[in-house]
Order: sequence, then structure tokens, then C-alpha cells
Amino acid sequence: MNKDTSVTRWIREITIPTALISYTYRATQKKFSKELARYHIGWGHFIILMILSDKEGQSQDGIAQSRGFDKTMIAKSVAKLEEMGLVRRENDPGDRRIKRLSLTKAGRALCPELKHIGFGIYSDLVKGFSDEESARMIEYLRRVAMNASDL
Amino acid sequence: MNKDTSVTRWIREITIPTALISYTYRATQKKFSKELARYHIGWGHFIILMILSDKEGQSQDGIAQSRGFDKTMIAKSVAKLEEMGLVRRENDPGDRRIKRLSLTKAGRALCPELKHIGFGIYSDLVKGFSDEESARMIEYLRRVAMNASDL
Repeated sequence: MNKDTSVTRWIREITIPTALISYTYRATQKKFSKELARYHIGWGHFIILMILSDKEGQSQDGIAQSRGFDKTMIAKSVAKLEEMGLVRRENDPGDRRIKRLSLTKAGRALCPELKHIGFGIYSDLVKGFSDEESARMIEYLRRVAMNASDL
Repeated sequence: MNKDTSVTRWIREITIPTALISYTYRATQKKFSKELARYHIGWGHFIILMILSDKEGQSQDGIAQSRGFDKTMIAKSVAKLEEMGLVRRENDPGDRRIKRLSLTKAGRALCPELKHIGFGIYSDLVKGFSDEESARMIEYLRRVAMNASDL
């Protein structure tokens, strides 16, 4: 392993949670970019596919809003996924302003592989955590995220 | 408070740490952008100023490397801070390829205000955490960041 010791030294010394969150975010993004390159998608596309694999028919703006994403960014990512034949976008029959998203057959077929990648990165992040520690960390992160939604 | 309940519902249900980290990162960035707008700087500039207020004379590439930042991004941010008269960049007398950074008088004068902003956001994020919980969360985040550096 060619680990840069200046990084590990910094991590050991820093006591500011925002800095650690930001570092982890960037390192995770980098790893996702590398893993997803062969599918010609980025992290934003990955997230949309995962959200739809969990529940289809969600509205495009609803997805953006509930997770604090920029609506224009989500719209652009969805347009690319549509172009790639992975996602279908349809107007809601009751309210034509609402766009409902679903996966195509190809999109659905891709999801297990993508989930595997996501789960692999997640497992790597909590390496060395006991089940109890892992559960407690998620509880803490959830409380921090809830506070962040009040910022 | 005009809190979007779809956000809080999502946070309560999600069990994926990467999603919570990414949400917290985005919400924090948004808050920083708002707070820093009046200084005409962004989050990246803020970080560089905070790093230098902690220790002057650090090298530009060293700062990038130890925190996993993109070197070009740091170079651009430093150039802007130099232009604004907040940071000074000098070649290392021993090795002219190394750029050493220090704060100008104006940069040093700005730091207490910026620290106050950073500390305010940090305090908001850990609202409701006891000292013990706060310390444990930082320990967990440090372990996660260490794992992230291995990705």
C-alpha cells in the first residue's frame, strides 16, 4: 500500500468533524468515480439509479428536494440516464408538471452490480467497526445530518 | 423554521453512512457559501486561510496532498487569495519549486471572524451531543476517514 503518511498524520491530529466529513466525502467520491468509469456514469447518476431501484415512480423534483440536491443537477443527470436508456421519465397523468421516473429493463439489470460497488465502498469505510459501533456511528451521523438540515 | 419534512423523513430512514456524510457535506457547504459570500470567498479559500492561521509557511502542494485536495484547485484558490491581498506566496529559498504560503496582515486580521463562522457551524452540527458523545463521534469519524484514505 502506497499510503501517503501526511494524510494519515493529518487525520490523526484533526479534531474538527466538518474537516473529517469533507475529507471522507472527497475520498469516497474519488473511489466512486474510478469504479463507475467503466459504466460511463458518475456518482450523481449512481445515486439516482439506487434511489429508483429502491422505489420506482418517484418524482424528479421530489428526489432532489428530499436529499438536498440541486434540481438542475438532478435534471441533467436524469436526462443523461434517459439518453443512455437506463431511466424513463414520464409526466404524471394527474399533474403534468410532475415528472415520474422509472428504470428501464437495462437500468434494472445494471442495479445489482452498482449496489455491489456501493456496498463494497460502504464496507471498506466501516472496516474495523463492531456491529454495535457501526450502529452507533449511523445514529450519530443521522443526528448530525438532522442538525445540518437546520443550518 | 421552514424545514422540509421530506428531508427529515429521508434522514430518519436512511441507514447508509455514505449518504448521510454526503448530505451533511452538501448542507454544510451551502451554509458556508452563504456565510462567506460577504467576504467574497468560498469554502476552499476559507480552508486555506484556516490552515495558514494554524501554521504559516506550509507549502502549497503539501497542503493539497495532506488533505486529499486537488493541487490545481488549491493553486487557483491561493492565486485568488494572493490577488485579494490575504495570502503571500514565496519560493522556498532551498528549493525554488516549493511555494511557501503565509498570511498578509489583512489575512491575519480576517482569521478570527472566519474562525468564529467555522466554529458556529461546527457547534450547530453537534447540537444535542454530550461531550462524551461528541468525542466518540470524532473518534468514529477519524476511523472512517482513515479507512477512506485506504480506498
